[in-house]
Amino acid sequence: MTEAFERSGRISAARVTSAWYVLCQSSELGRRPLQRTLYGWPLVLFRDGEGRAVTLLDRCPHRNVPLSGGRVVEGALECPYHGWRFAAEGRCTHVPGLLQTRGGGRDAPSHATVEQDGFVWVWGQAGAVPDQPPPAVPRFGAGYSEVRRSVDFPGTLHATAENALDVPHTAFLHRGLFRGAGTRNTIEARITRDATSTTAHYLGEPRPDGLVARLLSPSGGEVEHFDRFELPGVAIVDYRLGSENHFRVTTYLTPLTETTTRAFAVLAFRLRVPHALVLPFLAPIAMRIFRQDAEILAQQTAWVERFGGEQFVSTEIDILGAQIWRLLERAAAGRLVADAEPWERRVQLHV
Amino acid sequence: MTEAFERSGRISAARVTSAWYVLCQSSELGRRPLQRTLYGWPLVLFRDGEGRAVTLLDRCPHRNVPLSGGRVVEGALECPYHGWRFAAEGRCTHVPGLLQTRGGGRDAPSHATVEQDGFVWVWGQAGAVPDQPPPAVPRFGAGYSEVRRSVDFPGTLHATAENALDVPHTAFLHRGLFRGAGTRNTIEARITRDATSTTAHYLGEPRPDGLVARLLSPSGGEVEHFDRFELPGVAIVDYRLGSENHFRVTTYLTPLTETTTRAFAVLAFRLRVPHALVLPFLAPIAMRIFRQDAEILAQQTAWVERFGGEQFVSTEIDILGAQIWRLLERAAAGRLVADAEPWERRVQLHV
Amino acid sequence: MTEAFERSGRISAARVTSAWYVLCQSSELGRRPLQRTLYGWPLVLFRDGEGRAVTLLDRCPHRNVPLSGGRVVEGALECPYHGWRFAAEGRCTHVPGLLQTRGGGRDAPSHATVEQDGFVWVWGQAGAVPDQPPPAVPRFGAGYSEVRRSVDFPGTLHATAENALDVPHTAFLHRGLFRGAGTRNTIEARITRDATSTTAHYLGEPRPDGLVARLLSPSGGEVEHFDRFELPGVAIVDYRLGSENHFRVTTYLTPLTETTTRAFAVLAFRLRVPHALVLPFLAPIAMRIFRQDAEILAQQTAWVERFGGEQFVSTEIDILGAQIWRLLERAAAGRLVADAEPWERRVQLHV
Repeated sequence: MTEAFERSGRISAARVTSAWYVLCQSSELGRRPLQRTLYGWPLVLFRDGEGRAVTLLDRCPHRNVPLSGGRVVEGALECPYHGWRFAAEGRCTHVPGLLQTRGGGRDAPSHATVEQDGFVWVWGQAGAVPDQPPPAVPRFGAGYSEVRRSVDFPGTLHATAENALDVPHTAFLHRGLFRGAGTRNTIEARITRDATSTTAHYLGEPRPDGLVARLLSPSGGEVEHFDRFELPGVAIVDYRLGSENHFRVTTYLTPLTETTTRAFAVLAFRLRVPHALVLPFLAPIAMRIFRQDAEILAQQTAWVERFGGEQFVSTEIDILGAQIWRLLERAAAGRLVADAEPWERRVQLHV
Repeated sequence: MTEAFERSGRISAARVTSAWYVLCQSSELGRRPLQRTLYGWPLVLFRDGEGRAVTLLDRCPHRNVPLSGGRVVEGALECPYHGWRFAAEGRCTHVPGLLQTRGGGRDAPSHATVEQDGFVWVWGQAGAVPDQPPPAVPRFGAGYSEVRRSVDFPGTLHATAENALDVPHTAFLHRGLFRGAGTRNTIEARITRDATSTTAHYLGEPRPDGLVARLLSPSGGEVEHFDRFELPGVAIVDYRLGSENHFRVTTYLTPLTETTTRAFAVLAFRLRVPHALVLPFLAPIAMRIFRQDAEILAQQTAWVERFGGEQFVSTEIDILGAQIWRLLERAAAGRLVADAEPWERRVQLHV
Repeated sequence: MTEAFERSGRISAARVTSAWYVLCQSSELGRRPLQRTLYGWPLVLFRDGEGRAVTLLDRCPHRNVPLSGGRVVEGALECPYHGWRFAAEGRCTHVPGLLQTRGGGRDAPSHATVEQDGFVWVWGQAGAVPDQPPPAVPRFGAGYSEVRRSVDFPGTLHATAENALDVPHTAFLHRGLFRGAGTRNTIEARITRDATSTTAHYLGEPRPDGLVARLLSPSGGEVEHFDRFELPGVAIVDYRLGSENHFRVTTYLTPLTETTTRAFAVLAFRLRVPHALVLPFLAPIAMRIFRQDAEILAQQTAWVERFGGEQFVSTEIDILGAQIWRLLERAAAGRLVADAEPWERRVQLHV
């Protein structure tokens, strides 16, 4: 499997459509229609008469112009060319000039849409009934603060998730911000997986010497750290330093196109130091890390396209990349299989 | 036929080459060569020693550079690379440096060209003898004024012609300019067709309430109105309001590429009000309408290309679109067939 | 053969990889890695610990990002993503974080590289041992001056070489600079060829009347002139005017892509007039000629691509183009064949 992943000659873009994706934050969807893409497919979101989010294919069935150029009238989306109107579930409710309004084929394809936890979630397949609700954004309760940011990464969902959950590059690409500032330590990673997720627990890491690590835990202590990927595109990075400091980034990845991924990141944290002191630094540092990652992913994607596909060589410390690809490939094919026996692997690495 | 037109999955670009197209206005062709394209094919126009317009393929037979970058010398077009010269009908008359000037294959492909009514007309096929003269631009005689404008539409010739002759969108996209300002009326359209044209006569329409309509006929009255398409790309919109006001737009459509169409519009009109009062408003209003149409056609074309073809759904008030396509498709295949019996259809619509 | 060349319908790009190409001037390669392309293939050059030039495929074997975005550390090139390091011959010497450093497939493909005569020469095939050294840049000894310039031409190596060695266009495209200023003369060209080169000697040309010719030899005299092409891309133009004036341009052509060619031109000359007087004019005039050629080649290339291939018509005064193509095509196929008998052809032309 690893060999197949690495000597691929293709781009690692798996199309998982029976799944929920975040298309926008609730606050982005107001009175005007909003265009978004999913796997390159143009969608239009708007709010109907009751304020419920509706998602349609962004193409008028009549003469194929984008509906997102129109306006919302009486809870329906109006095409800017001839004024056809579309209500919830894409139903065509008005054709200006036409006397008999019977006649089929005028409805627009529609995607199930749920607004929850401040995000608008859209099911990846038009006309389908979801077999589950969208995932809940974790709430940690009292003492925790939350920051949200969204960033576009010019890479496949797979490349973006691998990057988000990769430890070795943090000591190099983000040198000094988190790791890579002082002496290196040998730690152990314990990798597990089930039918829909894979997790790496890192054991025995002392607090790193980088800026962010010092900021989070000035007094040092041991690190408790895991990285997890959940289908279709949830990347979780969780750090505990000592008993008081907890830091989790949950990133919901949405494939805008095959090679562009929007990350909706939720940073939840509880720190011994007053949050008001940390907050002014946290978002700028996170955005700097995101920009460095976006830049290297842009180079990777451009090069993979230029060479007509990926030709990757991995080592044992490329911990989650091949596992994530295995999950995505199976999900795209519609066959999620759990291991018969619990599966675990251990790897040592310098960090 | 309608079903085939609508569920096409292709772009409605028919290539009709045994036909005359306007490539430029007479006044555009001076001393310097002029590059134009027809169905994406680069052509170069210039005037020979007697001032006659000549049209050649814009490619030197020698080393394939565009001849339009050269200059006209003694009535011949000179290539900018080695100075080969081409006279009327593409005949190579000079190869600098060559002692024996015999030798074949040096002529440039040439298109029949006629200058008439202020336009330069070019036959769509190189090396062919036209089977008819170019159409005459209509002259209405005393009391009429004429205004000419040309506009590029980012759509196929078919989409541009359908748009030009479509009534329902005028009440919506151009709301308030012509129709759509006041109450709606139910009128009847009588559609006819022959081997090379199709016409819709509109019956029973009172004068619309829009700005242009008020300008043309302040006193109201009934509208006499027809829209007509003639092969290969003539779109005629004709309005009479009362006995004194007559307004006709004859548009000659030239396919620059499969999806870009240049419209040479001739506006002829006779009005009760002094023309000097109307003229300052007329061209700006017409250009505003053209710009709105160009913008929506750009969106339609982009979307059709993005989705890999058209998927149109029509109603009975899409009056001429399918008829125009039928004519274009047959002309492209070289088989123009008249109906055995006179053909007519009637449709009611709100305007 | 000529007929096949002219009615080709393809673009005359032959891929000769068993050959040396100049990738940069020695002075361009300092402490930082340098990206260059050969036939569109991205390469990265850097200097190892001993200052020797190294050329690798510009793609990290690990996650495929360009190595040229990294830095040189201890004579090895370091990838900017995870810090893998590559030494001479592409050997991977360090993977940060990895405990066991055994494991194959981590080396980067490498190209033989030689620094000589102020140029960095790279063999066109990765992993291959060159069967000959790079060509020596000619030295003419005392009394000669040398000027070097590099220019990019938007054309295939073939089109660029044909242009560089073509006489007729000099009287036209560069009219007045060299030839074409005064009366024309009939001269004779003697064309010869062997397995790897082709030469045209021009006989009986008086000194031309153009600016450059007057500058080189104010007193007139007969011209002794030959043009030569040597595989894989050396174009030589050699002029002697009288016994004292000698002027040679040796141009090393490197195919950056199939349709972009970088020319490294070496101008060597000995003149009766003081060189200090000529030098301020020489480079600007040469660059002006290069720009005119680059512009016409850009038009030619754009048109050949637009029409889906070349459709050339030649005459007998297109002296070397077909000969050059014959050499390139055979070299690309790996079969260089000398004529059994010495081959010679004579042609007369006006210049």
